[in-house]
Amino acid sequence: MTDTRYDVIAIGNAIVDVMAPCSDELIAELQLAKGGMSLVDADGARSLYDAMGSAKEISGGSAANTLAGLSAIGAQCAFIGQVAKDQLGDVFAHDIHAVGIDYDTPAREGEPPTAQCLIFVTPDGERTMNTFLGASQFLPPAALDEELIASAAILYLEGYLWDPEEPRKAMRRAIDVARGAGRKVAFTASESFVIERHGDDFRSLIEEGKIDILFVNEGELATLTGEADFDAGIASLQDKVPVIVATRGADGAVAVAGGERAEVAAQPVDAVVDTTGAGDLFAAGFLFGHAKGEPLDMCLKRGSIAAAEIISHYGARPEADLKALMAEKLA
Amino acid sequence: MTDTRYDVIAIGNAIVDVMAPCSDELIAELQLAKGGMSLVDADGARSLYDAMGSAKEISGGSAANTLAGLSAIGAQCAFIGQVAKDQLGDVFAHDIHAVGIDYDTPAREGEPPTAQCLIFVTPDGERTMNTFLGASQFLPPAALDEELIASAAILYLEGYLWDPEEPRKAMRRAIDVARGAGRKVAFTASESFVIERHGDDFRSLIEEGKIDILFVNEGELATLTGEADFDAGIASLQDKVPVIVATRGADGAVAVAGGERAEVAAQPVDAVVDTTGAGDLFAAGFLFGHAKGEPLDMCLKRGSIAAAEIISHYGARPEADLKALMAEKLA
Repeated sequence: MTDTRYDVIAIGNAIVDVMAPCSDELIAELQLAKGGMSLVDADGARSLYDAMGSAKEISGGSAANTLAGLSAIGAQCAFIGQVAKDQLGDVFAHDIHAVGIDYDTPAREGEPPTAQCLIFVTPDGERTMNTFLGASQFLPPAALDEELIASAAILYLEGYLWDPEEPRKAMRRAIDVARGAGRKVAFTASESFVIERHGDDFRSLIEEGKIDILFVNEGELATLTGEADFDAGIASLQDKVPVIVATRGADGAVAVAGGERAEVAAQPVDAVVDTTGAGDLFAAGFLFGHAKGEPLDMCLKRGSIAAAEIISHYGARPEADLKALMAEKLA
Repeated sequence: MTDTRYDVIAIGNAIVDVMAPCSDELIAELQLAKGGMSLVDADGARSLYDAMGSAKEISGGSAANTLAGLSAIGAQCAFIGQVAKDQLGDVFAHDIHAVGIDYDTPAREGEPPTAQCLIFVTPDGERTMNTFLGASQFLPPAALDEELIASAAILYLEGYLWDPEEPRKAMRRAIDVARGAGRKVAFTASESFVIERHGDDFRSLIEEGKIDILFVNEGELATLTGEADFDAGIASLQDKVPVIVATRGADGAVAVAGGERAEVAAQPVDAVVDTTGAGDLFAAGFLFGHAKGEPLDMCLKRGSIAAAEIISHYGARPEADLKALMAEKLA
């Protein structure tokens, strides 16, 4: 195994979030699945945008958010994802470069535009996401620079990538490249509806032993394993996945690795403003500790600190100095 | 005088703000005039954007921000301003429609793109603005629908409009239309550097008695009148302008009208996050009260409540329910 140039390389949907507060009544009226992520086409996105209040545009994308967190804490990161050659593509590229992440997937000419996620945030801080994948679904296999993938200690993939056809095919190749180079593969199941659509694929990757680190939340664990009971869900996976990280929202998180089990409580937060990115940033904190060889409970603590920061404000990219925050909270 | 369809119609630059936190060191390194607004060209905007951290895109524009506040409090408003036919133009139009403002200036085809204001926010909450006027400077005189202007009780204009050549010419016509229909003209001087560039024009409008309501801050008052002393500045204007509203930042604000003088303290704010839009929202609160015929001190209180809301978060568009906030604070 050669030296690694990056701590983590991620492949993900390159998305700009369009976020606005909304009432529970509007969620009901628009017949949205509160708390979930739905895919919408261009017309669907347009009609939801018309119904949305005055919004903010903030770069997003699950794996890109995780990398932004990792980079803020101090990891060396690279990102692969497809934007269009348009203003929102510029915004996405600017924001990821601005936090020190290497990103050079060329922007795609012509239609469709850069992916957008219309996020309705209810007064309880819960987010309901509607993703128009746009250019993101046309990530060409050629963009998967195999040398780059082999140069990172960890390859991080989001389950959302299984929705568009092109990237779905390319992901198995990326996993093989990483594993062939002796690297670890980390995977977030992303969302229960995604698992309903692509669970067989995820389960066979797990059965084949191709996932080294798995991130799930409680609901995703149940959907993935078919076990309604949390501990039974973990038990059904622990011989197949070396590191399992399961978040439980306000109830904290559990990690199981090599027969060891650790837990962490959720960090206290003054007010939950917007839960967008909570899981993404938990993964960032955990992966940072894991990449540095820290013990499980320390990795979990980092995850919960990063998640607490992200839910205290609008948007899924860190605003506080995460490195300083970690130093303070872990002192 | 016929009945009015709108409480306020505003003509302003149609701008999307691109906002990021930054250090005082970066302000110095980039040689920016802290707290001011500078005009930049496309290349200047590009190089400042490259130097900027991960940002948020939020609709802005001084007069448009004021209208968003007015509309949130319950006024009927219309806006005239020029965007390009691009994604940021869509964002601007969406956000202004979403708060219930009538806006139908057609988007402009081709280059340049929609105006952007790159806003660097230092830890003290102060904002340093760099505006690329883009499409905004090409507001055609034909967009100044005279019937529309005559249908609003108040015509509100921002001094920033005097920077681009086309709108500058059109503003005198808009003022004449409004006054000819028996309407009031409200004007914000916008910024000291703008007054340095166009003060003679502003002073002659005042001398000609064409401004009914004038908004200035302390520094602008001094630049406009040449009087370093605040009260001397007010005194030099009060026979020429029926209503003068002068804000003094943390020291509150003063209004002088018809021989009467009222003052208000600044509303207490837990933490000043970002002062972008403080003056715009003060104007919104004041104008709302004024349009309803409320006494001066009540108009000032509304101004200070709206300003306090806007500086407690990122961005120059209200996030709280301003109408409910006013009801609560004025109860």
